[in-house]
Amino acid sequence: MPVKVTVWHEFRHEKLSPAVAKIYPEGIHEAIASHLRRVQDLQVATATLDEPEHGLNEKRLEQTDVLIWWGHIAHDECDDRIVTAVHQRVLKGMGLIVLHSGHYSKIFKRLMGTTCELKWREDGDREILWVTRPGHPIVRDIDDHFILPSEETYGEYFDIPEPEETVLISNFSGGEVFRSGITYTRGSGKIFYFRPGHETYATYHDKNVLKVIENAVRWAAPTRGS
Amino acid sequence: MPVKVTVWHEFRHEKLSPAVAKIYPEGIHEAIASHLRRVQDLQVATATLDEPEHGLNEKRLEQTDVLIWWGHIAHDECDDRIVTAVHQRVLKGMGLIVLHSGHYSKIFKRLMGTTCELKWREDGDREILWVTRPGHPIVRDIDDHFILPSEETYGEYFDIPEPEETVLISNFSGGEVFRSGITYTRGSGKIFYFRPGHETYATYHDKNVLKVIENAVRWAAPTRGS
Amino acid sequence: MPVKVTVWHEFRHEKLSPAVAKIYPEGIHEAIASHLRRVQDLQVATATLDEPEHGLNEKRLEQTDVLIWWGHIAHDECDDRIVTAVHQRVLKGMGLIVLHSGHYSKIFKRLMGTTCELKWREDGDREILWVTRPGHPIVRDIDDHFILPSEETYGEYFDIPEPEETVLISNFSGGEVFRSGITYTRGSGKIFYFRPGHETYATYHDKNVLKVIENAVRWAAPTRGS
Amino acid sequence: MPVKVTVWHEFRHEKLSPAVAKIYPEGIHEAIASHLRRVQDLQVATATLDEPEHGLNEKRLEQTDVLIWWGHIAHDECDDRIVTAVHQRVLKGMGLIVLHSGHYSKIFKRLMGTTCELKWREDGDREILWVTRPGHPIVRDIDDHFILPSEETYGEYFDIPEPEETVLISNFSGGEVFRSGITYTRGSGKIFYFRPGHETYATYHDKNVLKVIENAVRWAAPTRGS
Repeated sequence: MPVKVTVWHEFRHEKLSPAVAKIYPEGIHEAIASHLRRVQDLQVATATLDEPEHGLNEKRLEQTDVLIWWGHIAHDECDDRIVTAVHQRVLKGMGLIVLHSGHYSKIFKRLMGTTCELKWREDGDREILWVTRPGHPIVRDIDDHFILPSEETYGEYFDIPEPEETVLISNFSGGEVFRSGITYTRGSGKIFYFRPGHETYATYHDKNVLKVIENAVRWAAPTRGS
Repeated sequence: MPVKVTVWHEFRHEKLSPAVAKIYPEGIHEAIASHLRRVQDLQVATATLDEPEHGLNEKRLEQTDVLIWWGHIAHDECDDRIVTAVHQRVLKGMGLIVLHSGHYSKIFKRLMGTTCELKWREDGDREILWVTRPGHPIVRDIDDHFILPSEETYGEYFDIPEPEETVLISNFSGGEVFRSGITYTRGSGKIFYFRPGHETYATYHDKNVLKVIENAVRWAAPTRGS
Repeated sequence: MPVKVTVWHEFRHEKLSPAVAKIYPEGIHEAIASHLRRVQDLQVATATLDEPEHGLNEKRLEQTDVLIWWGHIAHDECDDRIVTAVHQRVLKGMGLIVLHSGHYSKIFKRLMGTTCELKWREDGDREILWVTRPGHPIVRDIDDHFILPSEETYGEYFDIPEPEETVLISNFSGGEVFRSGITYTRGSGKIFYFRPGHETYATYHDKNVLKVIENAVRWAAPTRGS
Repeated sequence: MPVKVTVWHEFRHEKLSPAVAKIYPEGIHEAIASHLRRVQDLQVATATLDEPEHGLNEKRLEQTDVLIWWGHIAHDECDDRIVTAVHQRVLKGMGLIVLHSGHYSKIFKRLMGTTCELKWREDGDREILWVTRPGHPIVRDIDDHFILPSEETYGEYFDIPEPEETVLISNFSGGEVFRSGITYTRGSGKIFYFRPGHETYATYHDKNVLKVIENAVRWAAPTRGS
């Protein structure tokens, strides 16, 4: 049976900034979804903030095994009712993959119980992501590290609960470190936070980044029959 | 320097039920506080739901190193503003000890990010609490187990994040098990959940229960100078 | 591709005790293996202590994705060289499922770094195993608990590192509790310890016990391509 | 009551290399011990490899609350009998602080159950250690980061079990990251691994490094009366 994945995107930067639109002409969600559609046994949908109920009505959530979440400038516009519905679905087993600035989304903060604050700078630093959990399904077919030539910099302290698994840690050329790939379980739901993906860089066209997301979708899918 | 501890209590059952009032004539908070007042280097205050701001105004919270929390039938009456203030203080380092039915309090659910639901029955079961982390400061001077002759029964599954440390696990005569002493860190704050203490039993007069609470106060106190 | 599982068994009790031989005429390993052989996409082998190299030569270990281990009265007869070979294979990704008295095997103690001691009594207690991690693949198709009418009793403190995941906790009718289903990762290898299975009880004919073992085999299998 | 700490040092490099002897004329153990002797309520002893029983006879171990361990080129010369005695003391509650190349000592590998391998280069990289657990007693009075101008570089993957707490993560100017301050519990013993301290750098004269070690000694001391 295929894993049903919904890629949720705030989808605002692309409409506001020609530079972003040039990198992601159809939106970040489509960059991710178009990759996932080429993967065997995945069934891919998208949803965005400005759709009714943010594209996440009850039926859509029920039919989602794994939800991917990218948000940044409009976290506050997320309807608390929808956030609560997503929260409940995660606790009942839906996987959740939170990308980049989604660390500060309502849903991630609610699941973590902490501020989820971090340090950040935007200088186009070189980021190296090192695998700290080889053999983990999320880093299947990933080398011991991979490099992103330019990214927004995030730095510790990242105010999150101690992760269950730390799968990737980043080194930035400016001197920072960051726990970039971390997992949690909340209720029956598996959660993966994955750091990279500032809207002004072509990060979601990078094959390693897409591979990690693809692996994470399989990892986060709920156990059948449980 | 003394550890400043505030014992917060809903303090409703004692006013509603003569049976409860007989066990705790001055309230559960006083049963706990009167023990802690006899302990060296603790400075003990109490606060209750029906005081202004639930007895937890800004000044009181700032002067609290460790907050003990007992609530049951009036979780919903807790002002969200106060819950937010407590939440922020925990993340900044205030210790929090959540007792018994406090598992379902707003503050505990907010810190955990899960439903915090569990199974329960009230049959006066015998409860044995087994130490699963000998040498942990919370079970200092506690034998490998201790027995409560009659308690409310809680059962798994307890919907909480995987604990950082599981210090005590209960066996109930009716067949249940329960993770009865568990720890978390959220931000700089240390959190201890401790199961026993239904209002119709003399649990907070039990010397082992009081010793665990006393130990937990010391353990949860914030690091000076950090 | 099928998961290659090897069921390793000390296979001594069956030869020494007619009572045990009556329950497991072909040995505990065959009780487990015959169940796994009926499961789709598993390729099942067995190995026993008294075979050359305990049936675990280099080739066999290389062709094993998941190793199941039952030992009790002859832990000391395990050749350290073989234990080292198994240890290295686990660190490189082979899954390991340690059953019952295998808690005291050389391989488990070496992987844990602790004494792995526990309390035990043999009184035929009733054991209830409660699920503490619903949605986990190891308890797929298992109800919120299952009951074994008679088993050897194990009790806490179990001297192990804090588990990564606690999936099952047991209640014994004599008053004990025990962390009966726990997981670890060491290197790239996934480890599951599963408590039940004293040789004088028909535990490995129980459908829930067999289902948990079957689930654990799938869970512990190494990630392909990593 | 004072905490009794023993600083154990291999003490070979200082005898073999004039460059090392210039930085640590009385040995690395004395650089650490002389700092700890100035700290209130610590009682400090030292022990070295070439003393009888490596300076760690039964009486000395019994009188040690916390053992600090530095070794590098002579791990194999450590008598297995002494390693076993140290191991047993840790499980019974003695704290253990393992420094730098001690990651590859017999005692650390035995406690971890993994290879404890890592990547390394010696290029005098700049190392920044970032605090990932503010409020933790081990980083008391430490800023959000501190810098070592030149150190040996360690890189992930570091083959260790998932830490209970990750307190410090390093960024190296060459691009590596490393989990530099991590904690474990084994039996009743608390373990802290702390990365810095290559013998050719003045790292154990750095005030932040010494402060972390001092803090760790207090943190690792066993609970009285347990």
